[in-house]
Amino acid sequence: MVDRGEEQAMRAAIAASEQVRGTTSPNPPVGCVILGTGGEVVGVGATRPPGGPHAEVVALRAAGERARGGTAVVTLEPCSHTGRTPPCTDALVEAGIKRVVHAASDPNPLASGGAEVLRAAGVEVRSGLLVDEVAAGPLRAWLHFARTGRPHVTWKYAATLDGRSAAADGTSKWISSAESRAEVHRIRARVDAILAGTGTVRADDPHLTARAPDGALLDRQPLRVVVGDSDVPATAKVFDDAAETIQLPGGDPRAVLAALADRGVVDVLLEGGPRLAGAFLAARCVDRVLAYVAPVLLGAGPAALGEAGVGSISQAWRLQIEETTMSGPDVRISAIPQES
Amino acid sequence: MVDRGEEQAMRAAIAASEQVRGTTSPNPPVGCVILGTGGEVVGVGATRPPGGPHAEVVALRAAGERARGGTAVVTLEPCSHTGRTPPCTDALVEAGIKRVVHAASDPNPLASGGAEVLRAAGVEVRSGLLVDEVAAGPLRAWLHFARTGRPHVTWKYAATLDGRSAAADGTSKWISSAESRAEVHRIRARVDAILAGTGTVRADDPHLTARAPDGALLDRQPLRVVVGDSDVPATAKVFDDAAETIQLPGGDPRAVLAALADRGVVDVLLEGGPRLAGAFLAARCVDRVLAYVAPVLLGAGPAALGEAGVGSISQAWRLQIEETTMSGPDVRISAIPQES
Ligand SMILES: NC(=O)c1ccc[n+]([C@@H]2O[C@H](COP(=O)([O-])OP(=O)(O)OC[C@H]3O[C@@H](n4cnc5c(N)ncnc54)[C@H](OP(=O)(O)O)[C@@H]3O)[C@@H](O)[C@H]2O)c1
Ligand SMILES: NC(=O)c1ccc[n+]([C@@H]2O[C@H](COP(=O)([O-])OP(=O)(O)OC[C@H]3O[C@@H](n4cnc5c(N)ncnc54)[C@H](OP(=O)(O)O)[C@@H]3O)[C@@H](O)[C@H]2O)c1
Repeated sequence: MVDRGEEQAMRAAIAASEQVRGTTSPNPPVGCVILGTGGEVVGVGATRPPGGPHAEVVALRAAGERARGGTAVVTLEPCSHTGRTPPCTDALVEAGIKRVVHAASDPNPLASGGAEVLRAAGVEVRSGLLVDEVAAGPLRAWLHFARTGRPHVTWKYAATLDGRSAAADGTSKWISSAESRAEVHRIRARVDAILAGTGTVRADDPHLTARAPDGALLDRQPLRVVVGDSDVPATAKVFDDAAETIQLPGGDPRAVLAALADRGVVDVLLEGGPRLAGAFLAARCVDRVLAYVAPVLLGAGPAALGEAGVGSISQAWRLQIEETTMSGPDVRISAIPQES
Repeated sequence: MVDRGEEQAMRAAIAASEQVRGTTSPNPPVGCVILGTGGEVVGVGATRPPGGPHAEVVALRAAGERARGGTAVVTLEPCSHTGRTPPCTDALVEAGIKRVVHAASDPNPLASGGAEVLRAAGVEVRSGLLVDEVAAGPLRAWLHFARTGRPHVTWKYAATLDGRSAAADGTSKWISSAESRAEVHRIRARVDAILAGTGTVRADDPHLTARAPDGALLDRQPLRVVVGDSDVPATAKVFDDAAETIQLPGGDPRAVLAALADRGVVDVLLEGGPRLAGAFLAARCVDRVLAYVAPVLLGAGPAALGEAGVGSISQAWRLQIEETTMSGPDVRISAIPQES
């Protein structure tokens, strides 16, 4: 039996983990809540940047002696291996934690077994609480990375109801709404890297930073990645000093992702354009599609998605809609490409 | 004060009116519920086909003497003029109805004034109960027709997330889901006419009938209208005897709608293709867009909407999303073009 207090604590742990998204890679953004013997919250913590303590240790430090005999509620199975920091399982046992409730299990063969280690030390362990929420939310990219070795890619695009990203003459300001644009900036601040093709960088000269509606840079900036072989003018906005920028040769999306993985990138936002997005889709390197569909009809103009290896309807990329919500006047559709 | 019983009765009147949608044009599909003196339902009725009695009279006949001293709950203000049938206001007064609750008011100068006539006869009248629901639902097309003199046009289309209606080689079976296709057939059975361009008729040879999932013709079939100047083979499926079919010359969407209005058509489903839809949109002859967006990406292939008079983003057709729902795996978006 999982009690309501533990579910509430898990929601607080999820909220804590959301705060650190984008700052922990290649480590997972984990949240942890320590409940005292009376079920009261005595400590909350989230993963610190690489080299810093894990969520459990942060939460235990906040709880101090009040952790003794208590419960640790954590979004991911505690690690039992020594990496840059000692195992969290040791810290939990030493602090006198009697029960651990975690959401996701660790798919990483090196780190997993945390639950076993805890049980062997006499700690009660329950797993799976709110696992779906955690696996689709804060730990999504990291779990994907842990399973596949490839960064998780969200292809985000904005288009009209009839699937166009600009009018016939190329004008496109603003197809999507202020609300959607602000949301995209908040998403940028939580990912490790933003990708755009040389075509988009040359055509639009985008800044590719995470900004507030007033234009001010947000606290965290992702790595900006220009994909393609051709030269981009050194005066392009992506090369200013608001954030780090690299250019990677194009052609093979898997090679691009491997180069990013080597730099500790786990969560990628692919912002297009149509050719780069088509290439990533065709290479099965899109893990999620996030479409901002504006209530606009154009009847002419460039398409949001270019050549993606589909000649006939039987080769179509099929997806499953995960969620459809309104973003101001736009329809925001999140969908997952299906294995075909 | 409108009591809960009257709201419930209005919902029953709306449901009754939905049953007769597609059978009453050019008259409105109205529903009526008679409540007895104790507030109990004593009669339900809906508009009969042209020449037959209006909803109020049908419901009064069902109620008989139990209507005396009761309340009539009706989706549209009762008519006070003599058309093919005598005024409903007379029938209500003669039946001894003490109170009339209606949703929409009659915008028709000939028929309006029903509420005034009733009040003058000592009947209590309340208007506006659930008017938004009625005006967006069963009476939508008729109210539009009464205000503008033009049939109401819903442009329905099916497309992929990237706005395409077929793959590069023209194949498109099935982009939208079985659920969406079944829903379109149910919609067809409730409209007065279905429109398609000669291009679609030649390319796809569609039947344009309302059918059950097993292929059986539904009870009601709309008028099939082929729009365009060029010849369509006499062997085309639209010319079979499952329903009536006419061909109207194209070019001017307003002229097409005027010709349909002359035949008593009030509610039109425009099924495309892209060129005809573009022409209707450009002529401001689309009153509602109903998009079935399939969770599919193609990256190539014909667009769902063709040339619609938009060269630059400032000329874009802007819409307001009315509702977004799931239709099986598809996203169904209903949107209203805004005056620009
Ligand atoms: N609606 C939206 O959300 C959205 C988002 C972004 C951009 N856009 C629009 O897209 C337009 C630019 O379109 P685009 O297609 O030229 O831009 P793009 O996809 O950003 O850039 C295309 C270039 O990417 C490089 N590339 C790298 N790897 C590739 C691969 N595997 N396959 C193909 N190309 C690869 C190639 O350049 P090299 O020759 O240098 O290798 C190619 O020419 C702009 O007008 C912009 O406004 C729209
Ligand atoms: N995704 C969907 O929901 C959907 C729905 C329907 C069709 N489609 C696809 O659309 C394709 C056919 O495309 P299409 O554009 O040729 O079909 P269309 O729009 O049905 O037909 C175009 C023809 O309509 C006539 N027309 C009448 N009034 C017109 C006007 N004001 N402006 C322009 N044309 C007018 C013209 O023919 P005349 O020369 O004879 O005057 C024109 O050639 C098919 O492959 C079909 O599969 C898709």
